[in-house]
Amino acid sequence: LSEFSIIKTISKIVQSDRLDVRQGIGDDAAILRTPLRSDLVVAMDTLVAGVHFPVLTQPYDVGWKALAVNLSDLAAMGADPSWATLALTLPKPDNTWVAEFARGFVALARQHQLALVGGDTTRGPLTITVQAHGWVKKNKGLLRSGAQVGDGIFVSGTLGDAAAGLCLALGQTKSGCPIKVNSIGVYHRKILLQRLNKPTPRVTLGQELNRVASAAIDVSDGLAQDLGHILQASDVGAVIEVAQLPASVALKRYVSQEQECRHLQLCGGDDYELCFTVSPAKQKHLKTIEKKTGVRITRIGHIVSGHQLMLVDAKGKKMRLPQQGYRHFS
Amino acid sequence: LSEFSIIKTISKIVQSDRLDVRQGIGDDAAILRTPLRSDLVVAMDTLVAGVHFPVLTQPYDVGWKALAVNLSDLAAMGADPSWATLALTLPKPDNTWVAEFARGFVALARQHQLALVGGDTTRGPLTITVQAHGWVKKNKGLLRSGAQVGDGIFVSGTLGDAAAGLCLALGQTKSGCPIKVNSIGVYHRKILLQRLNKPTPRVTLGQELNRVASAAIDVSDGLAQDLGHILQASDVGAVIEVAQLPASVALKRYVSQEQECRHLQLCGGDDYELCFTVSPAKQKHLKTIEKKTGVRITRIGHIVSGHQLMLVDAKGKKMRLPQQGYRHFS
Repeated sequence: LSEFSIIKTISKIVQSDRLDVRQGIGDDAAILRTPLRSDLVVAMDTLVAGVHFPVLTQPYDVGWKALAVNLSDLAAMGADPSWATLALTLPKPDNTWVAEFARGFVALARQHQLALVGGDTTRGPLTITVQAHGWVKKNKGLLRSGAQVGDGIFVSGTLGDAAAGLCLALGQTKSGCPIKVNSIGVYHRKILLQRLNKPTPRVTLGQELNRVASAAIDVSDGLAQDLGHILQASDVGAVIEVAQLPASVALKRYVSQEQECRHLQLCGGDDYELCFTVSPAKQKHLKTIEKKTGVRITRIGHIVSGHQLMLVDAKGKKMRLPQQGYRHFS
Repeated sequence: LSEFSIIKTISKIVQSDRLDVRQGIGDDAAILRTPLRSDLVVAMDTLVAGVHFPVLTQPYDVGWKALAVNLSDLAAMGADPSWATLALTLPKPDNTWVAEFARGFVALARQHQLALVGGDTTRGPLTITVQAHGWVKKNKGLLRSGAQVGDGIFVSGTLGDAAAGLCLALGQTKSGCPIKVNSIGVYHRKILLQRLNKPTPRVTLGQELNRVASAAIDVSDGLAQDLGHILQASDVGAVIEVAQLPASVALKRYVSQEQECRHLQLCGGDDYELCFTVSPAKQKHLKTIEKKTGVRITRIGHIVSGHQLMLVDAKGKKMRLPQQGYRHFS
């Protein structure tokens, strides 16, 4: 029975020694011990082949990414990851594919002492749904709804790399791809593809921000859209200084025009950086957090009253939001 | 943005007033309050259109069933349901379909005071993954692994109806369909289709069995296969008295041959009844539980040493396990 051989393959590879797993893979459901004085945080994300990743993506990377996008959601809540469940829909039983997938999944899981505790395997078009569980202290956690007028707006890492990587992965030469595909070197090409296929969820940063940020979200659909969710939930507006948006060396060097670069940074999806707001009084903690986590933090603007997301250039002049694009292949 | 209109449609319909939901739909993840002295039980099941339900199934029934199969897993653990998350992959944004789906989902959710707290909506072939959360008292819960030699084997309700319903739903006239399709009346036809499309998870029964059963599983892939999991996990064998298998009036009346009827009862999937084992000393509680839950409980055999699943007829003569069939359309 192929379903059982798939489950066997996965369970062997993902073994974990967390003591809070009373019953993991292999019963009708998992039974999990819960800590005292904590609230449970649950995030669920689906990846569909050809929609959320190119169909030729390596199974190792698909496994990694399926967990990464969920850990990124937990990070944006300031949660400490504990367990995950996996629903894997496969066109045909393919143990080699499944084993590589499981290796990618567990490589990231081990970095965060997370255990895969259950799930389901079914036959159908390649689709992966992961639910990640984590913990925050009772009544703590980073919501989208806490941003206040006057708060600074910050992002981690650099923006736009995954969208540039997507152009490379699809071998786009058609209009719309802003990357100088022919001149980019192996090293930078690899970096951009890695940002697309093996994103790093900012889990430690998210937990550090718990005592500091007033609101947070992860950048999965593009900064403009995701920051928009904070603005809506917090009932505020924002001014973004476009010149401050952090760009990688690869992006700066191999994107033809400055305008194209901004487009990728504002509208490109799949970066999985954190975008968060911090009150003036608490901004002094950010240097320490940057040092402790090794993740670069950049101030990109501030919260204002109203509901608008306003972009300004280095001289404070208003700019137009570029047309949206690059979102999840659509 | 159609994703947001789908989320809006769903959240409006599924509203709940559970006080333990700190943050539900609408942030990066949900935040949930956990009770003291309880263990968390999580089950995850996927339904793929054309694999786990006929493509023409009403969206209301798909919504109901997507939750039902997960609640059935919680029931088989003896858990008290609390929250669910939903990953909905749709070929195209269709708010009418989504609204009907959500109505079916919430109709069952409300019966169990369960709240939908989050999830994901994506574009792709119709696939639904639900994760259900529930609670058992610390160190309690029904595993597959507790069956002991001498325990009685019991099932709830009747077996084989959903598999018969599947024949009707697919309008099967080809060889293999044992139902007298032409002579079955509207009433019994409806009952069998309902067993397929709107299964009743045995949630209350599962909780009552917590203090009584030594092992339990839900019958989703057919009694023979599912009881097999109990035998394997408990390292025991079983004798099943085939004449004792509970059959509905519809099944008895409209299945051509007794042998076909047994086939449906032993190998037919999608019944979502509970199969469980109870030690002789505790069997006296079953009458009370039957009365309290209104669910019929039938003794169908007993646990023996070894690893075999043995079928016997009314005279105790050994029978052969019929060829397996009817599992999830494959």
